Amino acid sequence: MTESVPVYMNRLGRAAREASRQLARASTAQKNRALLAAAAALDAARAELAVANQRDLDAGRASGLAPAMLDRLALTPNGIDGMIEGLRQVAALPDPIGEIRDMRYLPSGIQVGKMRVPLGVIGIIYESRPNVTIDAASLCLKSGNATILRGGSEAIHSNQAIARCIQAGLAEAGLPAAAVQVVETTDRDAVGALISMPEYVDVIVPRGGKGLIERISRDARVPVIKHLDGVCHVYIDVAADPDKAIRIADNAKTQRYSPCNAMETLLVHADIAPRVLPPLAAIYHEKGVELRGCPRTRELLGDDVLAASEDDWRAEYNAPILAIRLVDSLDQAIEHINTYGSQHTDAIVTEHFSDARRFLTEVDSSSVMVNASTRFADGFEYGLGAEIGISTDKLHARGPVGLDGLTSEKYVVFGDGHVRT
Amino acid sequence: MTESVPVYMNRLGRAAREASRQLARASTAQKNRALLAAAAALDAARAELAVANQRDLDAGRASGLAPAMLDRLALTPNGIDGMIEGLRQVAALPDPIGEIRDMRYLPSGIQVGKMRVPLGVIGIIYESRPNVTIDAASLCLKSGNATILRGGSEAIHSNQAIARCIQAGLAEAGLPAAAVQVVETTDRDAVGALISMPEYVDVIVPRGGKGLIERISRDARVPVIKHLDGVCHVYIDVAADPDKAIRIADNAKTQRYSPCNAMETLLVHADIAPRVLPPLAAIYHEKGVELRGCPRTRELLGDDVLAASEDDWRAEYNAPILAIRLVDSLDQAIEHINTYGSQHTDAIVTEHFSDARRFLTEVDSSSVMVNASTRFADGFEYGLGAEIGISTDKLHARGPVGLDGLTSEKYVVFGDGHVRT
Repeated sequence: MTESVPVYMNRLGRAAREASRQLARASTAQKNRALLAAAAALDAARAELAVANQRDLDAGRASGLAPAMLDRLALTPNGIDGMIEGLRQVAALPDPIGEIRDMRYLPSGIQVGKMRVPLGVIGIIYESRPNVTIDAASLCLKSGNATILRGGSEAIHSNQAIARCIQAGLAEAGLPAAAVQVVETTDRDAVGALISMPEYVDVIVPRGGKGLIERISRDARVPVIKHLDGVCHVYIDVAADPDKAIRIADNAKTQRYSPCNAMETLLVHADIAPRVLPPLAAIYHEKGVELRGCPRTRELLGDDVLAASEDDWRAEYNAPILAIRLVDSLDQAIEHINTYGSQHTDAIVTEHFSDARRFLTEVDSSSVMVNASTRFADGFEYGLGAEIGISTDKLHARGPVGLDGLTSEKYVVFGDGHVRT
Repeated sequence: MTESVPVYMNRLGRAAREASRQLARASTAQKNRALLAAAAALDAARAELAVANQRDLDAGRASGLAPAMLDRLALTPNGIDGMIEGLRQVAALPDPIGEIRDMRYLPSGIQVGKMRVPLGVIGIIYESRPNVTIDAASLCLKSGNATILRGGSEAIHSNQAIARCIQAGLAEAGLPAAAVQVVETTDRDAVGALISMPEYVDVIVPRGGKGLIERISRDARVPVIKHLDGVCHVYIDVAADPDKAIRIADNAKTQRYSPCNAMETLLVHADIAPRVLPPLAAIYHEKGVELRGCPRTRELLGDDVLAASEDDWRAEYNAPILAIRLVDSLDQAIEHINTYGSQHTDAIVTEHFSDARRFLTEVDSSSVMVNASTRFADGFEYGLGAEIGISTDKLHARGPVGLDGLTSEKYVVFGDGHVRT
């Protein structure tokens, strides 16, 4: 580049702000046309995408990228199918923009309600997976926001090839090219610039490891919608149905190990533990899940269970490891979750109405469940259609963030010459 | 104090976090009892409040506080009546906490909805007016949040006397004393500590001058709900009813000059200007409002109108001064507002349906109005019952912030042993 990184990023920001005004008034049909045209462009560009992705993979191998990273980087034909399908699904979602709710007359005679509007410009910072480029761009576009995408440097050629397809879609719908911009430099200063332009960027959504997210949250000069830990709990209450308890505690841990909504600590009421823990331990043993328990858990299950330390109660393993603790009351379970949890997703298994009611009220997490697996906590399962991430923040969006989380509401007021007296 | 400011603030923070858990599960009746008991305590403490306030006023006079500041600091019997009435009004508002909405079955068989919950701990930083102590404490308490209040050092004795009344109310309702804490040191480091404890404080609401708010936004390590400028516009469209236009443009400017929702710039379509501007200028002249216009405005109204500079389009006068600009189209009006405005409150006067519709969609402000005075933009007029401030942010709360703005929504999921496949 002939210009410096700050000058370049400033130019992207200014263009995004400009484009966001056009996007805010784009019709639903126009936005959908862009999404479907981008899908068609992806389908037509399979060969080009494969070449671009191969360049990234070769460079990654040459620079000694770990196999797991190379895996995430790879753009398979199936992966391309998934991106195309994703674009079509987002096109099929209802347009949130312009929705007016709660319009009512007030004593002064004015009518007041709320209208859903785009946030403006959204900066997305992510790591290796190139499909995030499509996920993020499509949700932002549908919700009327301009996007600046900063992917991992190891995926730069793949991301640029994908961006060309999005550009084709935007052009076909008559939307500005700056509606979706991919940062073309791999210079790290670009991230610093992107998170420090409150005049051009309204919110940052980082997607990636905890280190990345903490760094961005600390340094950002604009609001950040972030997802930190997923230290999720299942609590098996004394009044649990044992069959449901076993089914849920199995599923929450073992259906998949890596997602953030997988259970990391199992809490069991001491009075029901002898009935549910031995069969659960057998299931976990068979599936190769390492157990780490409190002293009473080890007393019950034997020395195969390792001793859990204080660190285990705070651990997000994302792996076949489970911490288990016996508690003597619902209060103790809630106290444990509110102390060690990450306010992500926590479930109680119980048939006791008042215990369920208290758990729902007193557990301060973005998703609180009764008799269901924590693995349900995601945008698709919640009926949001898609998600840009799961927020562990309390302000603005909490839990799975779909289209609504990328919008804001402004007040609309109608009068007939009304003045204030 | 025997302890250092950071140690002291840390202790307050820890106590607030603890209290917030109790408050989150406090019943509606209990919270209302505390509010009404605090009102009774205020009523009984009028003499004590007067003495405390006199100490602040004497100290303020001695230190050369400006008359306007002394005015804000004064706690008159009427002011105390207002605080008592405010507490009663907040007690009468519906409790937002625990409200569950949009509960619906999904294809997997789980039920998903959203439950309204407190944010947790709210830090309020404000300047001289002691009545903010009651406003802020009552709204936070009703919405189930613990509060740490840091008022102006010049009002410290008044605030402490008010805090004792709140404490009496909390005690009578069996709620923890740490539910509402007033920072007892006037050391400036207390503010720095308050905005840097994400483990104890969930959100900061600064109330005061722009300098204070900018400083806090820049330095805070927790989210800030902030209100910066109120550069509000009225645009008189070519299709405006001239009577309504004159009534609204008069009211928006002159009903009161200091509020943030008063009009600062009047935009007038050139084709209707000869009909509405001369009578408006006569009204403004009579009320002593200084006019600063674009060249065409001055051509129309004469040299009594000063020449407006670029700075005038960005000015928040909060005073009997008005900038006037003629425009040739709705597009130009929208462009002016989105360029120079502060995204607070903007109104169009028009009978043209499509112009109104475009203005509502394309003006990116927290309140957008048709045929009504910008002066309506506040929590009471919008039916929120009360407000803790007006947010010019886009994330979380936008526009007047009432009880709902002090809450968040978590997902609740009900199943019957459901697991993910």
